[in-house]
Amino acid sequence: MTPGLAFFYGGLVSKRNVVNTMLSVFMICGLAILLWILVGYSLSFSGNLGGVVGNLKAVWLHGVDLTALTPTKIPNGLYLIFQMMFAIITPALFVGAVVGRIRFKFLFTFIICWSILIYYPMVHMVWDNGILAKLGVIDFAGGTVVHINAGITALVLSAFLGPRHTYAKGETQHYNILWVLLGTAILWIGWYGFNAGSALGMNDIAIQAFLTTTVATATSMMTWMVMDMITKGKPTLVGVCTGTLCGLVGITPACGYVTTAGAFWIGLVATLTSYAFISLLKPRLGIDDALDAFGCHGVSGMVGSILTGLFATKAVNSSISLNGLFYGGGFKLFGLQLLATAFTIIFTTVLCVVIIVLLKRVIKMRVDAKEEELGLDQGEHGEVADYTVSMSNDLTDIQRHSSEFQGQLAQLLDRHQRFR
Amino acid sequence: MTPGLAFFYGGLVSKRNVVNTMLSVFMICGLAILLWILVGYSLSFSGNLGGVVGNLKAVWLHGVDLTALTPTKIPNGLYLIFQMMFAIITPALFVGAVVGRIRFKFLFTFIICWSILIYYPMVHMVWDNGILAKLGVIDFAGGTVVHINAGITALVLSAFLGPRHTYAKGETQHYNILWVLLGTAILWIGWYGFNAGSALGMNDIAIQAFLTTTVATATSMMTWMVMDMITKGKPTLVGVCTGTLCGLVGITPACGYVTTAGAFWIGLVATLTSYAFISLLKPRLGIDDALDAFGCHGVSGMVGSILTGLFATKAVNSSISLNGLFYGGGFKLFGLQLLATAFTIIFTTVLCVVIIVLLKRVIKMRVDAKEEELGLDQGEHGEVADYTVSMSNDLTDIQRHSSEFQGQLAQLLDRHQRFR
Amino acid sequence: MTPGLAFFYGGLVSKRNVVNTMLSVFMICGLAILLWILVGYSLSFSGNLGGVVGNLKAVWLHGVDLTALTPTKIPNGLYLIFQMMFAIITPALFVGAVVGRIRFKFLFTFIICWSILIYYPMVHMVWDNGILAKLGVIDFAGGTVVHINAGITALVLSAFLGPRHTYAKGETQHYNILWVLLGTAILWIGWYGFNAGSALGMNDIAIQAFLTTTVATATSMMTWMVMDMITKGKPTLVGVCTGTLCGLVGITPACGYVTTAGAFWIGLVATLTSYAFISLLKPRLGIDDALDAFGCHGVSGMVGSILTGLFATKAVNSSISLNGLFYGGGFKLFGLQLLATAFTIIFTTVLCVVIIVLLKRVIKMRVDAKEEELGLDQGEHGEVADYTVSMSNDLTDIQRHSSEFQGQLAQLLDRHQRFR
Repeated sequence: MTPGLAFFYGGLVSKRNVVNTMLSVFMICGLAILLWILVGYSLSFSGNLGGVVGNLKAVWLHGVDLTALTPTKIPNGLYLIFQMMFAIITPALFVGAVVGRIRFKFLFTFIICWSILIYYPMVHMVWDNGILAKLGVIDFAGGTVVHINAGITALVLSAFLGPRHTYAKGETQHYNILWVLLGTAILWIGWYGFNAGSALGMNDIAIQAFLTTTVATATSMMTWMVMDMITKGKPTLVGVCTGTLCGLVGITPACGYVTTAGAFWIGLVATLTSYAFISLLKPRLGIDDALDAFGCHGVSGMVGSILTGLFATKAVNSSISLNGLFYGGGFKLFGLQLLATAFTIIFTTVLCVVIIVLLKRVIKMRVDAKEEELGLDQGEHGEVADYTVSMSNDLTDIQRHSSEFQGQLAQLLDRHQRFR
Repeated sequence: MTPGLAFFYGGLVSKRNVVNTMLSVFMICGLAILLWILVGYSLSFSGNLGGVVGNLKAVWLHGVDLTALTPTKIPNGLYLIFQMMFAIITPALFVGAVVGRIRFKFLFTFIICWSILIYYPMVHMVWDNGILAKLGVIDFAGGTVVHINAGITALVLSAFLGPRHTYAKGETQHYNILWVLLGTAILWIGWYGFNAGSALGMNDIAIQAFLTTTVATATSMMTWMVMDMITKGKPTLVGVCTGTLCGLVGITPACGYVTTAGAFWIGLVATLTSYAFISLLKPRLGIDDALDAFGCHGVSGMVGSILTGLFATKAVNSSISLNGLFYGGGFKLFGLQLLATAFTIIFTTVLCVVIIVLLKRVIKMRVDAKEEELGLDQGEHGEVADYTVSMSNDLTDIQRHSSEFQGQLAQLLDRHQRFR
Repeated sequence: MTPGLAFFYGGLVSKRNVVNTMLSVFMICGLAILLWILVGYSLSFSGNLGGVVGNLKAVWLHGVDLTALTPTKIPNGLYLIFQMMFAIITPALFVGAVVGRIRFKFLFTFIICWSILIYYPMVHMVWDNGILAKLGVIDFAGGTVVHINAGITALVLSAFLGPRHTYAKGETQHYNILWVLLGTAILWIGWYGFNAGSALGMNDIAIQAFLTTTVATATSMMTWMVMDMITKGKPTLVGVCTGTLCGLVGITPACGYVTTAGAFWIGLVATLTSYAFISLLKPRLGIDDALDAFGCHGVSGMVGSILTGLFATKAVNSSISLNGLFYGGGFKLFGLQLLATAFTIIFTTVLCVVIIVLLKRVIKMRVDAKEEELGLDQGEHGEVADYTVSMSNDLTDIQRHSSEFQGQLAQLLDRHQRFR
């Protein structure tokens, strides 16, 4: 999925920032895997320090019996790999907010700090025996841990970075929409691994999660397409892809707990909320969340997390102890979901601010104006996405020459005319 | 697979119709999923009205027990999802015929009518307890329901639409062949989900279907490559990809019933027939089936469906009651397969004509000439595939200027010469 | 995976050789599948001629009971399909060395001879009951059979072919790095099929192989990135992708036998060795292994194969009879792994030379200089990768015209000046 995200983001940025965007996403595969083996698994799932985080006893998987079975009857090793996937994709999500201006070294270091101080504690609190899990908060496949968390981080990072110099001029020309569609397709397929996979077995809940994910996503696609037709008069491919993502995000926390009708409503509301935020509220905020990492993952993630408190039902999943508000469970689960959402927003915001403020003292955060204009592909990596990028420069040169010729020719013709 | 098809078709069209082509295919994921949940499953698998179609008792899966097992021992929910995939891909196939000139709204509405009036009845007749199934027609993974059906629809639609304005000038420059290869690769891999998956279990038939699909496809690839070398002197990548598709289509109805030798012959004959149709017969028909949706899916689908009546054998699959002609079963199965093929052709043609004639009264079918020339990406969606499309326009401008300069310079030099 | 390799290689070559590179890789799917069914399976797994090769009794799977179980309890048919995948990917690997100058027909014929004379015997010797297997050599998923074998073939082929005419001028502009990343992503994911799949079951060894593959690959990615930062000052996307591949190659023979710590060291050493070879030794050799098929697969394959003799441990996999040197097994396994590596190098080199020398008498090996300059896409296939390739030619024309104009204008202005 992480390469899928690399293509989704890489296709959307300007031709001068494609390599940087994709490398920033893809290198996280290496970084987050090593971090996860080194300390991540341990801080997430070994022991319990104050309900907030694990301990360091299982550093580099020390003492972990990979073949022992978890309570849900799958081998530890498999669960560790499954959880590792979430630890890779989550930091990759917020890269979308900061493209075109963040220094590679800052991003690299930030992800290390963020994983240790924010991500592993969130996993422990929601999916291991931490405080949120004990309260009865439910999050089937990552509404709080993954999407709200990544969305808020995206927002805070882009607020600190400031907008790209081109931001005021309006949307930049996308590099190539085909890669956006490819990224969307890979993400959609991979998402089933997360959502159906979170049933932790080939069982009826996995099939239900597959089905609800499908219904919510189809609803979101169609919703965004219709909204585009209403407000712009035309359906767009980038819109349909964004809608698809909103549906996937929205249903994530709910997918194993709701009916297909619930999935329909969650897909619809999540998409409308993200659509409204991105087209109405975002322009007024002045925060350049370049590829809508917050607008999509943050906003739809919050909607999904909260609506889980309305639509969850024991009829679908007997493992939960409370029904949602619409299924006769009263306000308890709904309140818990609101609380978990609010908690995640605050927890992530505060710690993100702390990390950024401290890290900025050591490492410069933003590339200089000249590199930004030239593009980060050249500045940070010395590579170009493809051979047409230099063609594009040549073409600009020729256009300049052409104007000069036109001027000189006009001058010459004029002299001839006067000479006569 | 549907995104795979989007790339296959998107790579083949001209640079001005890429977004439209891909969006037309991809949006079907959303549309066909919602339709399937709403009425499709019900009309296909609930009850039996006159052997032709199901009823509406299971609208929005009402009363469907997703966890109950089907006769083949898989959960209903899983079978419903599996069948949903066919309902998505089939309408996407005929998009290839109509690219570059059909209005998005017409296509959208047509697919809704077509699914309800043609596709769900076909599923019911062949794969549920409808008339064709009861007669003993066999179709392992979609020869009649999917490929002949989509191929005929493609032919009728392109006959009504008329050819693209550029059609007489010969083949347009493909946007990008790499996407064609990517699409082919995704389709090939996804096809195993359909062909081996149609065994509805991890069993020996699934392995046999996997193997026959592989052998037929490899044969088809090599056959098309050799035909290209014979007729054009050179193997081509687009040819190898088209051959791959013909093999996959041809083996689809037969894959769980034939030996690897049977698969070889089906791959060979399907490809040669499609090759002959596309290079010899199609140019005389004057029908602009732009990306050979009929030439590939229709023609190879018919060949596969009919040859199943020759090569099917109980030695491979004991669940069938008749051997094919070549395995001592006499003409009975062969006749049935011929009948099913003819029935599908007539059924789809008649209903397609009815839908199109009625729909044309309400919605304009074809874009106007100016939009067609400009490209549907601009006209229908206001998007371009990638940043080089505008470079291409700039380059054309510069070329025009360059000729003007040349003229003016020649004139000036001429005057100077004479002046002397 | 083979299409993945097509994209990896296709993205790296110059814009004039993209189609040829991808077709050369992709057509192997068809060719190697038919060969495998025809004689490959038989020569690899049927009988035992002198410990070196199988016999021809199972030609076109004659007499093979596809549903019978292998000693590891999977159906013969499935094992045959699994092994077929290796027979496809291995010849595709060395295509990377010879791009831009080998004739398609030579390559096609070479692959047939190579499969029969080199590949199937290697499979028989290592993975069936051949001499290397009997000695106790271990190769979990293809260090000797696949990577050293393909790497050495790449080296010998490029030595015979001679360098591309552009080789002396330094690196050519890559066609498009996004395809390189896509190829890498597909290869990485597909590799799990090989490495975890080589456990031949969903068991603890499969999970261990998944985990060691992941750790080694992450280590390699990060190692190459850091090396790039040290030597070039900047991390590069092509570098990270190459590193990823080195890790996958290095861990392949070891993945089911080593701990995650062993995987870390193998990933690190394999990458550093490949990096050193490619940047230091290769330029002195004067052999144009265009896309580093030897530098990556050959070198990292040797490292992985040899280090398996150090890091293998019965604690991970009780099916092996010897521990590696670092786990108290003494020099025996280490010596065996050295022997197998040396044997593969010599066996492949000798037979490659024989095949090439004989084949060159019948078929011309290299395209002529003019075709090489024009590009093999035009010369061998009459296709271009995408529409921008012709734009690029137009642009070059315009640039030439532009210089002419400039000259003529300067002349005219000069005359005017003098005239005054």
